[in-house]
Amino acid sequence: MDEGSVSAAVFTSNRFCAAPVQVARRHLTHSEARYILINAGNANAGTGERGISDALRTCQAVAERAGCEITTVLPFSTGVIGEFLPVDKILVKIPELLADLAEDNWLPAVHAIMTTDTVAKAVSRQVAIGKHRITVTGIAKGSGMIRPDMATLLSFIGTDIRATRGTLDGLLRSAVDKSFNRICVDGDTSTNDACALVATGMNACDIDQNAEHREIFSRVLDDVCLELAQAVVRDGEGATKFITIEIEEGRSRQECLMVAYAIATSPLVKTAFFAADANWGRILAAIGRSGLQDLEISRVMVQLGEVCIVDGGVRSAEYTEHAGQEVMRREEIKLRVRLGRGNSRETIWTSDLSHEYVKINAEYRS
Amino acid sequence: MDEGSVSAAVFTSNRFCAAPVQVARRHLTHSEARYILINAGNANAGTGERGISDALRTCQAVAERAGCEITTVLPFSTGVIGEFLPVDKILVKIPELLADLAEDNWLPAVHAIMTTDTVAKAVSRQVAIGKHRITVTGIAKGSGMIRPDMATLLSFIGTDIRATRGTLDGLLRSAVDKSFNRICVDGDTSTNDACALVATGMNACDIDQNAEHREIFSRVLDDVCLELAQAVVRDGEGATKFITIEIEEGRSRQECLMVAYAIATSPLVKTAFFAADANWGRILAAIGRSGLQDLEISRVMVQLGEVCIVDGGVRSAEYTEHAGQEVMRREEIKLRVRLGRGNSRETIWTSDLSHEYVKINAEYRS
Repeated sequence: MDEGSVSAAVFTSNRFCAAPVQVARRHLTHSEARYILINAGNANAGTGERGISDALRTCQAVAERAGCEITTVLPFSTGVIGEFLPVDKILVKIPELLADLAEDNWLPAVHAIMTTDTVAKAVSRQVAIGKHRITVTGIAKGSGMIRPDMATLLSFIGTDIRATRGTLDGLLRSAVDKSFNRICVDGDTSTNDACALVATGMNACDIDQNAEHREIFSRVLDDVCLELAQAVVRDGEGATKFITIEIEEGRSRQECLMVAYAIATSPLVKTAFFAADANWGRILAAIGRSGLQDLEISRVMVQLGEVCIVDGGVRSAEYTEHAGQEVMRREEIKLRVRLGRGNSRETIWTSDLSHEYVKINAEYRS
Repeated sequence: MDEGSVSAAVFTSNRFCAAPVQVARRHLTHSEARYILINAGNANAGTGERGISDALRTCQAVAERAGCEITTVLPFSTGVIGEFLPVDKILVKIPELLADLAEDNWLPAVHAIMTTDTVAKAVSRQVAIGKHRITVTGIAKGSGMIRPDMATLLSFIGTDIRATRGTLDGLLRSAVDKSFNRICVDGDTSTNDACALVATGMNACDIDQNAEHREIFSRVLDDVCLELAQAVVRDGEGATKFITIEIEEGRSRQECLMVAYAIATSPLVKTAFFAADANWGRILAAIGRSGLQDLEISRVMVQLGEVCIVDGGVRSAEYTEHAGQEVMRREEIKLRVRLGRGNSRETIWTSDLSHEYVKINAEYRS
């Protein structure tokens, strides 16, 4: 990143967080990031002290070659957990990587970090803020072990605006909370999740000086994060469907999320979506076991696409199997659940559970 | 059941509990059970007031024909959620069912209630209690939507001892808590779970009068419940492995269960077991995301069979891929996790996630 760049990042809440996550977090407290070093195939997680020193060795090599402080290098890894990082293989490539650095290398970068991903996930937006035309570009990788708690597997976003760390950090956390923290492929939170945002300041647009400009930038950042997060779900391992789950009228956002994730992580609901089977009983069962002890089922409404299937806790009078089936056959499905007990709402995005998911995870070591 | 029989039962904690669960629970508060009426194929859940009256109609038909009170008939259903009970089909069979009642009909009964089950699950034990020789016989059905919270899908246990409702209830709850409430196939808690215990009192052995006798009976009941619960896991939809997960040195039993179920419900861990892939990084990731915010990973030990794979939070020095692989190839696998932060422990049993699971649940409507 250009000198003067300002960075912010969020990381996994998994207690077994990977060595690079620990190193990147520490480096960020000391410096602004100048270099991001990412490897795919090995997560450098569950590797203890040696994992930390391996990550530091790769950062040190970049720092020496580039002539910067080691703390300005942030390491990220994704891949198999529990094996030591092949440090020598990485070190030997560093001169070449530094020589090839270029502003428009986003696409080669996102291709390089794919594992079980089948499509490269990249988004770029340009918008006018006042008299400035600013850019926000992001990439993400991730397909399995997806239920981010602080961020998704790996996502990197760059922009040319000017901002302080505190501003970037707040905006990134807010954007991530509405995007990467609202998706779920298989319910497994990764050890390596991280999302980093870098602002180069090459554009004169300074969002710290102008609340309106900050607001516009925030919306663009939200958009980029949401599009990347949804791209992760669309490319979910074995996914054949993209499912939006909206929970309404909960007492709190927390309980809306409990219901949403009970549905999104239910193997029975997910296989029914895969089979395009309007087996809504499985959705009811998931709502019923989601932990809302005093849920009054007679107030629950469930809608699949535009079709009301459950009203007052029982099958809607106008529901027909044919109508339900028609929605289930779509590739993009919206499921709405009204709990009838408050004013909170939450939306999450998930995928189905297919033969291919089992095949990928039984045959590929991720 | 013979006149004078005493019953106890535990039911699902799913808020969308089925109509028969509501009726059976209510009937038990009024009377001792004389008849148990079970149907498979239709769960009579998510059916509202009509579901209740349908269940009552079937009970009423039994009561009229048998000349007993309606509250002495307990209804149980298992099958598709959200469709109305085909009451007429059931009513027409009741005279025949009553005419065919016999003491040794346990096996035809368990075969009759199977849905995606591939084996009939029945256990019978005879033991000496003092000078009495008593019998405990139980059956269970269940294969998918298995993460019981009060009981498994359906289980019925009979014994000839004498006991009060209060005694039976306490012993049944304790037995279920160590068996049916410690298993998990897919993490989905059913709307129809129920486990009932009936004591006919035909044997003079009275466990209310003798603490030692009660203790022996309690152990036999525990055994029968555990064997039935484990049989449900062994017959789990698509299951190819039987996995015992022991969590030790937790601060509380609750946190041991959190870790155990995080592992048991992880699709990534389950597919690794299916593939016999010693991909223990997925186990670490599941432990790390299980919700123990202050877990010190440097105290965590993970053992697969007799092979220590993780010690002090990192790969054990003596671990070899070959040794891990050898354990993973077995049909019965024990996974031990030591948290190093307390004296509590819990054990649960689970199965793997195979191609067959997806096939069954995409093609069969359960």
